[in-house]
Amino acid sequence: MLNCAETAAVLRNWDNILVLSHASPDGDTLGSACALMRGLLALGKRARFACADTIAPKYGYLFDGMPQEDFAPEHVMTVDVADLSLLGGLREQFEGRIELAVDHHGTHVPFAPQRWVEPHSAATTELVFLLLQELGVGPDRAIADCIYTGLTTDTGCFRYRSVTPRTHRIAAEVIEWGADAGEINRVMFESKSKAQVEAERIVLDGMEFFCGGKCAMVRVPRSVYETTGAADSDLDGVATLPRQIEGVVIGVTLKEKENGEVKASVRTNLPADSARLCARFGGGGHKGAAGCSFPGITMEKAAAQMTAACEDYLRELNLL
Amino acid sequence: MLNCAETAAVLRNWDNILVLSHASPDGDTLGSACALMRGLLALGKRARFACADTIAPKYGYLFDGMPQEDFAPEHVMTVDVADLSLLGGLREQFEGRIELAVDHHGTHVPFAPQRWVEPHSAATTELVFLLLQELGVGPDRAIADCIYTGLTTDTGCFRYRSVTPRTHRIAAEVIEWGADAGEINRVMFESKSKAQVEAERIVLDGMEFFCGGKCAMVRVPRSVYETTGAADSDLDGVATLPRQIEGVVIGVTLKEKENGEVKASVRTNLPADSARLCARFGGGGHKGAAGCSFPGITMEKAAAQMTAACEDYLRELNLL
Ligand SMILES: [Mn+2]
Ligand SMILES: [Mn+2]
Repeated sequence: MLNCAETAAVLRNWDNILVLSHASPDGDTLGSACALMRGLLALGKRARFACADTIAPKYGYLFDGMPQEDFAPEHVMTVDVADLSLLGGLREQFEGRIELAVDHHGTHVPFAPQRWVEPHSAATTELVFLLLQELGVGPDRAIADCIYTGLTTDTGCFRYRSVTPRTHRIAAEVIEWGADAGEINRVMFESKSKAQVEAERIVLDGMEFFCGGKCAMVRVPRSVYETTGAADSDLDGVATLPRQIEGVVIGVTLKEKENGEVKASVRTNLPADSARLCARFGGGGHKGAAGCSFPGITMEKAAAQMTAACEDYLRELNLL
Repeated sequence: MLNCAETAAVLRNWDNILVLSHASPDGDTLGSACALMRGLLALGKRARFACADTIAPKYGYLFDGMPQEDFAPEHVMTVDVADLSLLGGLREQFEGRIELAVDHHGTHVPFAPQRWVEPHSAATTELVFLLLQELGVGPDRAIADCIYTGLTTDTGCFRYRSVTPRTHRIAAEVIEWGADAGEINRVMFESKSKAQVEAERIVLDGMEFFCGGKCAMVRVPRSVYETTGAADSDLDGVATLPRQIEGVVIGVTLKEKENGEVKASVRTNLPADSARLCARFGGGGHKGAAGCSFPGITMEKAAAQMTAACEDYLRELNLL
């Protein structure tokens, strides 16, 4: 396991670097990759990016004005990737070639010979910020936007328990560098299409409670997208809603994916631990937020398995 | 107009201080009052609190363990009060007796001979934090909770454009003092009763769009509370929702109050200015969030007046 200075030393010796984000990319994995690439480019190195899935248009500004040169990479690294499986369609191509991983997941499964993993960091961009400082990269507005994006999206806008004084201090720094925090938050948290509002309404209308109101579950079948015209990512925000209801300890959102797979997003209040619950199904994440997949079974069956697991877990915690 | 050091000098010479919050008290006015009183008590002074309205139970922790001594005040001051009218039922009693005002509203109408008003402060607790430092009050977990409460509630959890590097740095400091940020955010932003969820759903179902989708309006008639059992404050969060819809520049929420008065909460995206729009009806607030009242008219008429004002204002901004 490396520390920040050691990770910087590795990068200082590298050139022609490929940075990988996890599949279904979020603001933290993309913000980390783009901030890091911008820093490496500023140091005169060549860096490029790859991700298994397409980038949602709302993240486009992270890449703005960054030259996308094609080259055969000498070195491959990942940011915000907790496990090889999260590389999605890129796994096969890069398995065994990844030399360095920078991540903040407590559930990180080591896959790179060199890695800097800090589970107490609220976002991977927090680590990337420290790394860029170590590398001597100076204040830069575009880097600031990338760092801020990871901080705010991974913490629900500084809301979660994962936020530390350091998270706030880095936010202060990058706002000073010129990060457009207000606009980034508007785009990430306060911008919904009418289709999205309609889809959320349908989904929330069907919210189910069980375990005496300690668990709440919403289901997002494919039909919701067809009825409303909402896109898949339009319902990302729904996952946080079941947990918000008074008395709910475990909030579960089940989404039917295009390939038929059912994905669960779990959000918990203390003392429950989302990552521990999701681990029962081979998933992972953080204490307050985690996920897992149910490949090859119906929504109905996934819901039944998840319900049973919640009940069992609440009993384990002496909450039932 | 005083600065921080001068305000501290005033307080150093005072004792037996009454601190007033504004009516319909929010997290910032209560957090400011409680943090300040705790600081004054720590300095060996007597301080007590008054507010025209009752305090919602969710704010109870701000007052926990604070001695509430009754005494005839020698000095009266306000925190987070932009205008005398916002003292509500206490106005008559204290008009002309208020010696000091600490506030962050750009629309502050001077009513106290001595005042420290910083419109670029995201919350009044930001100013109170600086004041307590100036007064030499040391780290304290209860004060930290009060300061953090004002910061997070007045900024939608660090989301709004009003947030500056200083806001984040103070958040970092008070988390180090022991502020229970995760729990405060959960209580303030992520805790809804089923009645509240149901009431929000009814209200949002009736959202109306006008000015070609640039304005969105929701109405909260008294009947919603009767149907769902939700309390008045349960629908506070609704005000932020209309503005979040793609293309909406002005979001308006009209609430029918128990006394029949209609209150408007306005939230705007750039370039619109909520305070300027509300000023047309004698109201005020901040650029992104403001409010005004329509006493003695029906919801229907208030909606018509507000709609006309929005249209007129959007024309003025060349957005229509
Ligand atoms: Mn992350
Ligand atoms: Mn305030």
